[in-house]
Amino acid sequence: MTQRRMVVVGGDAAGMSAASAARRLKDPGQLAITAFERGRFSSYSACGIPYWTGGLVDGPGALVARTPEEHRRRGIDLRMRTEVTELDLPGQRVRVRDLTSGQESWHGYDDLVLATGARPLRPALEGIDAPGVHGVQTLDDGQALLAGLDGPDGGRAVVIGAGYIGVEMAEALLRRGYAVTVVEKASQPMSTLDPDMGALVRKAMCGMGIDVVTGTAVTGVRTGPGGRVAAVATAAGEYPADVVVLGLGVRPETTLADAAGLPLGEYGGLLTDLAMRVRGHENVWAGGDCAEVLDLVSGRMRHIALGTHANKHGQVIGTNIGGGYATFPGVVGTAVSKVCDLEIARTGLLEAQASAAGLAFHAVTVESTSRAGYYPGAAPMTVKMLAERRTGRLLGVQIVGREGAAKRVDVAAVALTAGMTVERMTALDLGYAPPFSPVWDPVLVAARKAAAAVAAG
Amino acid sequence: MTQRRMVVVGGDAAGMSAASAARRLKDPGQLAITAFERGRFSSYSACGIPYWTGGLVDGPGALVARTPEEHRRRGIDLRMRTEVTELDLPGQRVRVRDLTSGQESWHGYDDLVLATGARPLRPALEGIDAPGVHGVQTLDDGQALLAGLDGPDGGRAVVIGAGYIGVEMAEALLRRGYAVTVVEKASQPMSTLDPDMGALVRKAMCGMGIDVVTGTAVTGVRTGPGGRVAAVATAAGEYPADVVVLGLGVRPETTLADAAGLPLGEYGGLLTDLAMRVRGHENVWAGGDCAEVLDLVSGRMRHIALGTHANKHGQVIGTNIGGGYATFPGVVGTAVSKVCDLEIARTGLLEAQASAAGLAFHAVTVESTSRAGYYPGAAPMTVKMLAERRTGRLLGVQIVGREGAAKRVDVAAVALTAGMTVERMTALDLGYAPPFSPVWDPVLVAARKAAAAVAAG
Repeated sequence: MTQRRMVVVGGDAAGMSAASAARRLKDPGQLAITAFERGRFSSYSACGIPYWTGGLVDGPGALVARTPEEHRRRGIDLRMRTEVTELDLPGQRVRVRDLTSGQESWHGYDDLVLATGARPLRPALEGIDAPGVHGVQTLDDGQALLAGLDGPDGGRAVVIGAGYIGVEMAEALLRRGYAVTVVEKASQPMSTLDPDMGALVRKAMCGMGIDVVTGTAVTGVRTGPGGRVAAVATAAGEYPADVVVLGLGVRPETTLADAAGLPLGEYGGLLTDLAMRVRGHENVWAGGDCAEVLDLVSGRMRHIALGTHANKHGQVIGTNIGGGYATFPGVVGTAVSKVCDLEIARTGLLEAQASAAGLAFHAVTVESTSRAGYYPGAAPMTVKMLAERRTGRLLGVQIVGREGAAKRVDVAAVALTAGMTVERMTALDLGYAPPFSPVWDPVLVAARKAAAAVAAG
Repeated sequence: MTQRRMVVVGGDAAGMSAASAARRLKDPGQLAITAFERGRFSSYSACGIPYWTGGLVDGPGALVARTPEEHRRRGIDLRMRTEVTELDLPGQRVRVRDLTSGQESWHGYDDLVLATGARPLRPALEGIDAPGVHGVQTLDDGQALLAGLDGPDGGRAVVIGAGYIGVEMAEALLRRGYAVTVVEKASQPMSTLDPDMGALVRKAMCGMGIDVVTGTAVTGVRTGPGGRVAAVATAAGEYPADVVVLGLGVRPETTLADAAGLPLGEYGGLLTDLAMRVRGHENVWAGGDCAEVLDLVSGRMRHIALGTHANKHGQVIGTNIGGGYATFPGVVGTAVSKVCDLEIARTGLLEAQASAAGLAFHAVTVESTSRAGYYPGAAPMTVKMLAERRTGRLLGVQIVGREGAAKRVDVAAVALTAGMTVERMTALDLGYAPPFSPVWDPVLVAARKAAAAVAAG
């Protein structure tokens, strides 16, 4: 049998999951696997950077799930600090540059996996590249940020953007002793929630001592001595800053793919079929943050940068290249986060997303508790639920609360996947015992209210 | 319009939920609602008794969701300490006895709701009715138990039966300073789990200082001075006891219904249709612990005494009597519990239940953690999953772990309800962030292993 060649571009979650899954199915005599990573770390949890920054976890080692050496011992030729600079699809080869030596060479493939990840949005503003302004997308980024942080009472930090990364970094910097200001263009933090739910997050963040400035666009970064960041300038005035973190979200890193003429979607991510094959290309695969995913609720493609999707994509790609069969059916838009003891979760569509998808809906909000009201530690929880008009199909759930709030959204994620109606959800057999839930779980309370709204028309 | 009459037998979860739901739809001029309760408490959380016993919550007041006075203010004529002694179905009336005065009278109805609950199993053994031997089914039971407990270092307690109530009461008595022995006939505690998962519970309970005696039948209760309990006798010897708690489970309390010729199932519970109408009786309804429920996974009727089902039943019955429409489609067998910091959960079928239902299956077990491995507080968790052969349909999940283990079973409960395959579950979009889950949620890890087993045949 001829040995086939699998080449992976990007050595993080999607790429190395693909490599590992393929290796489990094919031994090196059947399949040679080479992976190129331009950074210094492989298979790491970028999601852990805020907790490393905040001193909750050690880094960077603890955030690495599998080191380059471990991959190599498993028969994967992982080359670090090696950047792929060009894809030659007709020639079935990639050009790579060794970032240490500067040497370039071509590598042929039978199957090519693109797992190039995402890059943080960095607005074209004066001073945005000044020392002290940090993205937090890679472990290399995290290392650069930590090297620049001062002692426990370090000064002033400004976080630009109040999405998941923004609020998590706000907590981290607060833990490090910084006075933290979060500047957000939108009217509320967490634009991944509806504004009414975002308002709950704002209130809680303010209670933690975080300065939340919303409805305010950043206009520039002012530098001080040595060209280092000194302040963030906004339409509403200047916020002094010893350190600035970019939490504006990310874009798919698809420069190479674009140059090679591969199909990109509305958000700039690679478009694939359900087996994670790039559309129209039999032997090119893409997964993780560089790819768009099908939103099963709206029927649209979206870009969602999340390690859990990247791992699943990699698993699917590697299984298929290894001769097995797997698909990634799509997502329902689940995301969970926390800032201090506040838990924030969503799945499915927001009001604006549902409208944009052409869906009419009823939206209800309920207050409940994480445990039986009389049980110690019962914490308040707000659950918002959207149900389609007439059909009563669940469209989305948002939860803001304390302990026990975030993972409750999983119930809604499964119900969305199954296309369940809110009426059917009212009878779901969810776990009940006083330490874990009121006798009506908060999600069921919301479902009852939503079902009543649907019935009332 | 003629005023109709709704009569409710039993003033706890199912009965008073039915009364309340009907009252929300019909005002007193349209519907007279009379409820009879033989005990001293209405609408209470019997599930809270272990936490009251353990001193974690106040009682009995805190465990009462709605007092008789509150019900009466809402236009429900709730009569306490009043026992229904006979059902006259052809005459559409019930005979009631005022337990205070001893007076009896007949009350006519148009709709009759049977919510007579369950009674604890009390084996026919010598001494089983001795003072100091307690059931924990009602708040009256709880009050009697607490009145008999000594100070913080109270002596020796024996719990007979190591099911949910048994392990919860073991924790409670441990908290009260008792030396606790749990005696269980089966080979492992928690016979609501497979024996291999029950063994994990045993190990944890022993670690907490609870003496767990399994494979041992109780043969009698020895009494001491004043006829009070002194020890529990077993085939393996005597266990001294100052207090004994019965945790052998419950049976539907259907004496009245049986005498009236209503249809009872295999477990002695009332049989209803999906609207919770007693089969063959247009105007008789039953819900809560006195009724059997359809198990959606096995297709069989089961008896599951659980407050959350009782509340749902009541809601369905009251909605239907009030002129609305609602059904209770059935259960999937979800139950969660804890003993100290150990969380125990199950949903769907155990191995033995699946076999008894004629299902062939693959069973897999995985070890995972509640959070990203590197995140503080990540706790180990064991997940067992059963999937049907060939179809790959999820049949059941059992979880034993620490914080964050129990409510994870809800994901499986929804997947069971939707008839999902384990292959489809591998791609579920569950919430991921390091404080809440590893990048592959433990349930997904189990689904992957189960899907692989199904694929391998």
